[in-house]
Amino acid sequence: MAERVEIVRKILDSNDRLAINNQKRLDNHQIFGVNMMASPGAGKTSFILETIKRLPADVKLGVIEGDTAPVTIDSDKIIQAGMPAVQINTGGDCHLDAVMVEMALDQLPLEALDLVIIENVGNLICPAAFKLGTHANVLIASIPEGDDKPYKYTNIYRNLDVLIINKTDLLPYIDFRLGYFKAGVEALNPGLITFPVSCKTGEGIEAWINWLNTKLGERKA
Amino acid sequence: MAERVEIVRKILDSNDRLAINNQKRLDNHQIFGVNMMASPGAGKTSFILETIKRLPADVKLGVIEGDTAPVTIDSDKIIQAGMPAVQINTGGDCHLDAVMVEMALDQLPLEALDLVIIENVGNLICPAAFKLGTHANVLIASIPEGDDKPYKYTNIYRNLDVLIINKTDLLPYIDFRLGYFKAGVEALNPGLITFPVSCKTGEGIEAWINWLNTKLGERKA
Repeated sequence: MAERVEIVRKILDSNDRLAINNQKRLDNHQIFGVNMMASPGAGKTSFILETIKRLPADVKLGVIEGDTAPVTIDSDKIIQAGMPAVQINTGGDCHLDAVMVEMALDQLPLEALDLVIIENVGNLICPAAFKLGTHANVLIASIPEGDDKPYKYTNIYRNLDVLIINKTDLLPYIDFRLGYFKAGVEALNPGLITFPVSCKTGEGIEAWINWLNTKLGERKA
Repeated sequence: MAERVEIVRKILDSNDRLAINNQKRLDNHQIFGVNMMASPGAGKTSFILETIKRLPADVKLGVIEGDTAPVTIDSDKIIQAGMPAVQINTGGDCHLDAVMVEMALDQLPLEALDLVIIENVGNLICPAAFKLGTHANVLIASIPEGDDKPYKYTNIYRNLDVLIINKTDLLPYIDFRLGYFKAGVEALNPGLITFPVSCKTGEGIEAWINWLNTKLGERKA
């Protein structure tokens, strides 16, 4: 077991180095980069689509879609919404890493973009261990996943900059103790910026857009 | 990248060997072993609790609970329901493996058991690659995860013996195309045994119990 841990450490080291390069590249283009993580089906693509609808017209977004299989379901939706998207097929790997993101950035028109959102593979564990070179780690939790997730998936909650709580429209039908959930988050990541939203009704998304606009303004200042 | 793949291959080889040992051990005790996998929050623990409620009184169950953090939320619930449970903390690892299960089996009263359910780590990717030595791979999908999951997480759907579709009580509130979902499953795993259930209302669980009873009967025959 000790040997195995060492191998993982080495991969992380080289990944961290490449992540720094990715971030410099985004910085050179004054692009704000977001690493969007979630469980399978928490609503990452829907949330990106709602974001696209509400972004100011002058903000140019590029999306990198990570999947473990050669499917284009998500990237097709983004392209239909009028934004450039690059699909990464990890070939079964359970997370994106900085190498994959570097290759995807090669295929985006960076000189024309203000914002890059990377939709990570649907997984609450492995993505937390691999930096991509983005400026913000965003997790989309969703009401049907249950209120105990911060207690079980501590690593991902500890390293977040923003938490989205999606599918609030389902609250009347699900036993979800918001206080218990929030106490778990607060213990790991005090004062974490949190936006409860519903991609179905659109409720709460404007607050996230305001936060994003502030960040985009800081990049250009 | 090539080197990394080779390392993973070696781990899988030794894991497969240990999984065979685990299965022999279960066979020696005429125990039926279930590897229960799912996304975070699909309802694995709730489903095990509903199973416990409905099992014939003479069936003795032991549960192995896998988590990535040192939490006992799930194993406490099983013990409260009157069944022996062993907690595995993977220390951040994204799946259970045959070594962890071997160590957990050491702590269960195997001579007194008929059924062992292993609740894997909440993850649709990595658990699919590691055999544990069980007799059936069971996946709990849930309605709020969305109908496109079989198209995205192909490996796990391909290697299933039973599929549970949980949270059917939420169908009226969610856009879930059952036909589209089922077509995706059928393409990967034709004729897969499938039980739609609701742990909230109890609907459909009896059919799963009947299947389990048949399997338990075959072990003792």
